[in-house]
Amino acid sequence: MKQKIAVLGPGSWGTALAQVLAENGHDVSMWGHNPAQIDEINTYHTNRHYLPNIKIPESIVGYKELKAAIAGVDAILFVVPTKAIRSVAQEVTKHIAGNPYIIHASKGLEQGTHKRISEVLTEEIPEDKRKEIVVLSGPSHAEEVAVHDITTITAASEVEEAAKYVQDLFMNDYFRIYTNHDVIGVETGAALKNIIAIGAGAIAGLGFGDDAKAAIMTRGLAEISRLGVAMGADPLTFIGLSGVGDLIVTCTSVHSRNWRAGNLLGKGKNLDEVLDNMGMIVEGVATTKAAMELAESLNVDMPITATIYSVLYEGKDIQQAARDIMLRDGKVENEFSQK
Amino acid sequence: MKQKIAVLGPGSWGTALAQVLAENGHDVSMWGHNPAQIDEINTYHTNRHYLPNIKIPESIVGYKELKAAIAGVDAILFVVPTKAIRSVAQEVTKHIAGNPYIIHASKGLEQGTHKRISEVLTEEIPEDKRKEIVVLSGPSHAEEVAVHDITTITAASEVEEAAKYVQDLFMNDYFRIYTNHDVIGVETGAALKNIIAIGAGAIAGLGFGDDAKAAIMTRGLAEISRLGVAMGADPLTFIGLSGVGDLIVTCTSVHSRNWRAGNLLGKGKNLDEVLDNMGMIVEGVATTKAAMELAESLNVDMPITATIYSVLYEGKDIQQAARDIMLRDGKVENEFSQK
Repeated sequence: MKQKIAVLGPGSWGTALAQVLAENGHDVSMWGHNPAQIDEINTYHTNRHYLPNIKIPESIVGYKELKAAIAGVDAILFVVPTKAIRSVAQEVTKHIAGNPYIIHASKGLEQGTHKRISEVLTEEIPEDKRKEIVVLSGPSHAEEVAVHDITTITAASEVEEAAKYVQDLFMNDYFRIYTNHDVIGVETGAALKNIIAIGAGAIAGLGFGDDAKAAIMTRGLAEISRLGVAMGADPLTFIGLSGVGDLIVTCTSVHSRNWRAGNLLGKGKNLDEVLDNMGMIVEGVATTKAAMELAESLNVDMPITATIYSVLYEGKDIQQAARDIMLRDGKVENEFSQK
Repeated sequence: MKQKIAVLGPGSWGTALAQVLAENGHDVSMWGHNPAQIDEINTYHTNRHYLPNIKIPESIVGYKELKAAIAGVDAILFVVPTKAIRSVAQEVTKHIAGNPYIIHASKGLEQGTHKRISEVLTEEIPEDKRKEIVVLSGPSHAEEVAVHDITTITAASEVEEAAKYVQDLFMNDYFRIYTNHDVIGVETGAALKNIIAIGAGAIAGLGFGDDAKAAIMTRGLAEISRLGVAMGADPLTFIGLSGVGDLIVTCTSVHSRNWRAGNLLGKGKNLDEVLDNMGMIVEGVATTKAAMELAESLNVDMPITATIYSVLYEGKDIQQAARDIMLRDGKVENEFSQK
């Protein structure tokens, strides 16, 4: 059934998701801070800075006012940066009418509080002003979705019917959605994977090979699963699209900012040089600090994260760090085993 | 403590593992079918056909007679091809003295019976002639281990003390071992991953991108986990080194035979052309058939394996096959969830 949906955040991922929804026959409004970008969407049906060479469906209407964008919608999709989630949610709460589903496709933990995005949304949008919150996450480049390459992602909600609603909204012959009930696991996997991407980039920069890449990805996944479980996640979620799937895309693509930052560190640059060189935010750097603080407060062993932390924040030599981590005592592989 | 170990099968992986053991200070004998190769090992301390440019430790002694190679050993390591496991085990049983540990580092299922390698070893080597059986498996290129690149693998046994024994044998500053109790999960993951490698190669050959690669690897892992669980495995084993770790190495390295075979299929070649072109065995082709038979008898849904089967054995058009698999009903992501 045709739905009316507001997409908040016209970056590359927001635009690609808006395109999927419009192509599936839904009414889509987009809202963003930059008036020139909204004009471009409405006039030229392009968003060249974020998705070059893509023609956006003409049925998508851009709005400069949040209130107008969310008027009468069945669902609101947040695709704004993590640091803007709380303020945009407050703005939404001021203007919301009816009780739409709240969907988000952002990845990260709130700085300072270390809260997950759905926790922030729950705090800011009262229950009587919304239906359930659903998380959309998985291995996806906006540029590939925009050209109808095959992509699979997860829609997670504690309420099965809400996850299925989102599955129905997005699913088509190039975009396939799997439902999941483990919101905590999906959100923590998406946020924490950027730490491992820095490590995988560093391993490549140091000149190690495929075995070492697989080692850091697999043992990295084991420790972000440990932290996720301590935060309330199901360990099996980390074997899914939002866990290992997203990790594969992030760690085996040279386009990943986190991977590239790690790669430069591995080649001997220091953190200041790396961040200057990148010219944009490397989410994994802040996430490494957040994960270390969480790991300490929850008493979780995270040797790879601790090693990356010591390189990023304590100036440890990266060659030495890579060798030291191999010299620990022998370990058991899987501490969540059911048997 | 210094141990005496026989390595059966002087291929690239057997030779690399023998080198690790010798460098760790153990007495290592090697046995193989080819007398010229054994002479080369003893005279020149090389194994050029399998590990070019590598000097093997001079302490490793090659044997042409199995009986001499295994005389007085503390452990026997099988690294022979899957199809030779049963006959070599029978030969070992004839000549065995004492009761050594039995370790294997082979990957596959016995043709016809679909038995795991440790099942074949259990059938052929009576319990009073051996200690426990331990499986060694994980993401590893012999060429990288031979030059001391960082590698991590799993030692799995139902008996913890046996897994720890093998961990101690192999562990050093470039080769790190994690113990695991789930022999079934480790063996099925290692065998079944080759199916997914064919699929990942095909997806690349068809021209799909990173999202589709992550999709087939993650959803492929989900279905080999389902089959593994039906065979008695712990689903969490598939998130480990012998599962996702080995899958990453196999699906993101162009050196994988299974990936290359799939890639040629994706580019429009038919199976006969592909197998002629490869000039060697592509294990995943036979494994796909075995998995389909097992899935039917155990009533497990394996849509990706079934699709690859239809392309390999029923001549289905591969472009159509890739699109058909996207058009199935929406699914739940994780059927083993604990919550």
